Amino acid sequence: MTENLKCKGEKNIMNYQFSEKVSHLQASAIREILKFTSEPGVISFAAGNPAPEAFPVETVREIASELFQNDPISVLQYGITEGYLPLRNLMKERMTAQGNFKAESEELIITSGAQQVMELACKSMCNPGDTLICEAPSFIGSLNAFKSYNVNLVGVPLDDEGMNPELLEKALKENPNTKLIYLILNFQNPTGKTTTLKRRKELYALAQKYNTMIIEDNPYGDLRFSGEDVPSIKSMDTDGRVIYAGSFSKVLAPGIRVGYGIAPKEVISKMVVCKQVSDVQTNNFGQMLAYQFMQKVDFDAHLAKLRGIYKQKAERMLNGIAEHFSANVAYTKPEGGLFLWCTLPEGSDMSGFCKKAVQEYKIAVVPGNAFMVSESDVTYSFRLNYSTPTDEAIDKGTAILGQLTKEMFD
Amino acid sequence: MTENLKCKGEKNIMNYQFSEKVSHLQASAIREILKFTSEPGVISFAAGNPAPEAFPVETVREIASELFQNDPISVLQYGITEGYLPLRNLMKERMTAQGNFKAESEELIITSGAQQVMELACKSMCNPGDTLICEAPSFIGSLNAFKSYNVNLVGVPLDDEGMNPELLEKALKENPNTKLIYLILNFQNPTGKTTTLKRRKELYALAQKYNTMIIEDNPYGDLRFSGEDVPSIKSMDTDGRVIYAGSFSKVLAPGIRVGYGIAPKEVISKMVVCKQVSDVQTNNFGQMLAYQFMQKVDFDAHLAKLRGIYKQKAERMLNGIAEHFSANVAYTKPEGGLFLWCTLPEGSDMSGFCKKAVQEYKIAVVPGNAFMVSESDVTYSFRLNYSTPTDEAIDKGTAILGQLTKEMFD
Repeated sequence: MTENLKCKGEKNIMNYQFSEKVSHLQASAIREILKFTSEPGVISFAAGNPAPEAFPVETVREIASELFQNDPISVLQYGITEGYLPLRNLMKERMTAQGNFKAESEELIITSGAQQVMELACKSMCNPGDTLICEAPSFIGSLNAFKSYNVNLVGVPLDDEGMNPELLEKALKENPNTKLIYLILNFQNPTGKTTTLKRRKELYALAQKYNTMIIEDNPYGDLRFSGEDVPSIKSMDTDGRVIYAGSFSKVLAPGIRVGYGIAPKEVISKMVVCKQVSDVQTNNFGQMLAYQFMQKVDFDAHLAKLRGIYKQKAERMLNGIAEHFSANVAYTKPEGGLFLWCTLPEGSDMSGFCKKAVQEYKIAVVPGNAFMVSESDVTYSFRLNYSTPTDEAIDKGTAILGQLTKEMFD
Repeated sequence: MTENLKCKGEKNIMNYQFSEKVSHLQASAIREILKFTSEPGVISFAAGNPAPEAFPVETVREIASELFQNDPISVLQYGITEGYLPLRNLMKERMTAQGNFKAESEELIITSGAQQVMELACKSMCNPGDTLICEAPSFIGSLNAFKSYNVNLVGVPLDDEGMNPELLEKALKENPNTKLIYLILNFQNPTGKTTTLKRRKELYALAQKYNTMIIEDNPYGDLRFSGEDVPSIKSMDTDGRVIYAGSFSKVLAPGIRVGYGIAPKEVISKMVVCKQVSDVQTNNFGQMLAYQFMQKVDFDAHLAKLRGIYKQKAERMLNGIAEHFSANVAYTKPEGGLFLWCTLPEGSDMSGFCKKAVQEYKIAVVPGNAFMVSESDVTYSFRLNYSTPTDEAIDKGTAILGQLTKEMFD
């Protein structure tokens, strides 16, 4: 590139050259779909928002008023990158009780939503070309975060017990440069599946055998509405190889953007440096609200209330599916969380189904390929969300969508 | 790396391999210093916090109360990545009036503080090894953000009119892979210097000649307390080569983490994708607060009040320096912003001076090398902040520090 080539007489209207990291990245297909589903008349099963009735509005109102009455400067002034100390201490206590935090070797960082844990972990640990293994399908936001660091993203299929261990071992053998395995073990997004205890142990053993780290992303773990809690992989971690991500988005409010990461001290200190250059710190109000909320209310009773809301909504959607869908459509029965996963008969035109659903039947769902490592990966599934729609929308929407499944697959 | 090598019988205590991007990164020296300067008895001129009395506490209290009374769900629920629409529209209006926004070709994104603009711009535009040119010295947070993407960071010295154009051209010739030039033109951090109009034009012409983009970071522009406003480089941009960063941290509150970036639509759309994978969206409360604040009060009158506060503090510090410092210490006389820059005689032990100041004299300042591309770059300067300390602390601190300068340099 010489000066002469670059300096022409005419004005240089820019021809942008984006970095390799981002030139292949597209805006999240889900969020793109969401833009259209806000149109009037469309029933959306495509979102992932908490139910509005799950927000503890009255308590939040009181806390906001108290915060700005008692300590406004602390809300407004700079805080520290690691996070608001009282919240960090409280979460350390809570996570210790759950087996997810070891004070002697680990640290906890408050992040701007759990999404930031994935970004910071990947940025801290992975060079371009390093392999990161994820469930296939998995949460699109995390997959895009990983892709934005140019890792070699490898998807390993889920079966009904979790990520398939034989296929994981095959992937680990084929990719000796694997740095991280990304797992959502409870009520996975998008499938609603929960990984069994036996499988968790197998996956951890494989991480040990092939000396990789694990990111355990647990945004929905507190939202179990049937069955029994399963110990986290973090709680089994004897080697310091698990980075744990938690969030207030589903148990308090996503708009406050507060999550947290737990990892060995050495790893957290790199994540702190990365956070410092990314957004300096998480907003104070969200952190102080989360802390005061947990102080003020019986948080476990609050969670029990949320579980009641989501149990009722999940059952309502499952009933609608059982009543209206073609028997040729399979679906998961989640024990918690916000999503279930429907699978059309093999060879179906899934994409055509989803388009027809939103365009002609005004029911929005998310096509399953949005959650695959590559959108061209074959899947016959789509995701349904039951947390956001009203009861009436669930009833009406499952009936209409069921009619379409019968027309196309009976 | 074979399986045998990696799978030993003993438990694998992890030996962490961090990414090349972050393995060389250290926590910000400023923030490290700040940790110590919170010790009782230390007068800190090392911070960069707005004056607590600059926070419009009463109005913020009212707005918070109204927001949670009138529209709590919008505060708590997910928003869109680009930012809260009313705030975006308002800022577009305001920036259009300032010549910083062109509706036909540009977009505006709300970010989690202006720091995030630097990170998103660098991530979007730069491959590892691409050159990014910055002022030497410059804002450490931005420099670290750039370093975290493994760019080739090249510092070009400032003179009293701004970045030296001959040295910039030399750097551009030597680094034909230059992607971005990073500039803080108003009351620069750390020097307090303002780039002249003539120099702005020269710098823009060089960006045109060598076909690079510019990041114009303007966190302090609204805080001019003497002299005349100088047009932004953004306002001269005919080619779409300027990314502009603005912030509410210094004119409303840093704890809310709200900033904004303006750039050609194509560039913003990549930055939106990068933000989506980083923190999904900026917290709603901060965005809604910024919007309501600008609606509710006469924002320009509010800025005038802030200018009054900082003018008084700057003058107080300048008076203290004039009265107490050794005549062999040079210093800048900022026309706005939060900082000034002192330079010891050539060959002085600047680092020793700063250590002695904090350890023996209990006055914290930031050693100038914290702001250089490499901490080993030679500088005899240090940064003083006048926005955070009280009037009494300014008086006492300049007197004590002055004594030390006389002992060491008279």
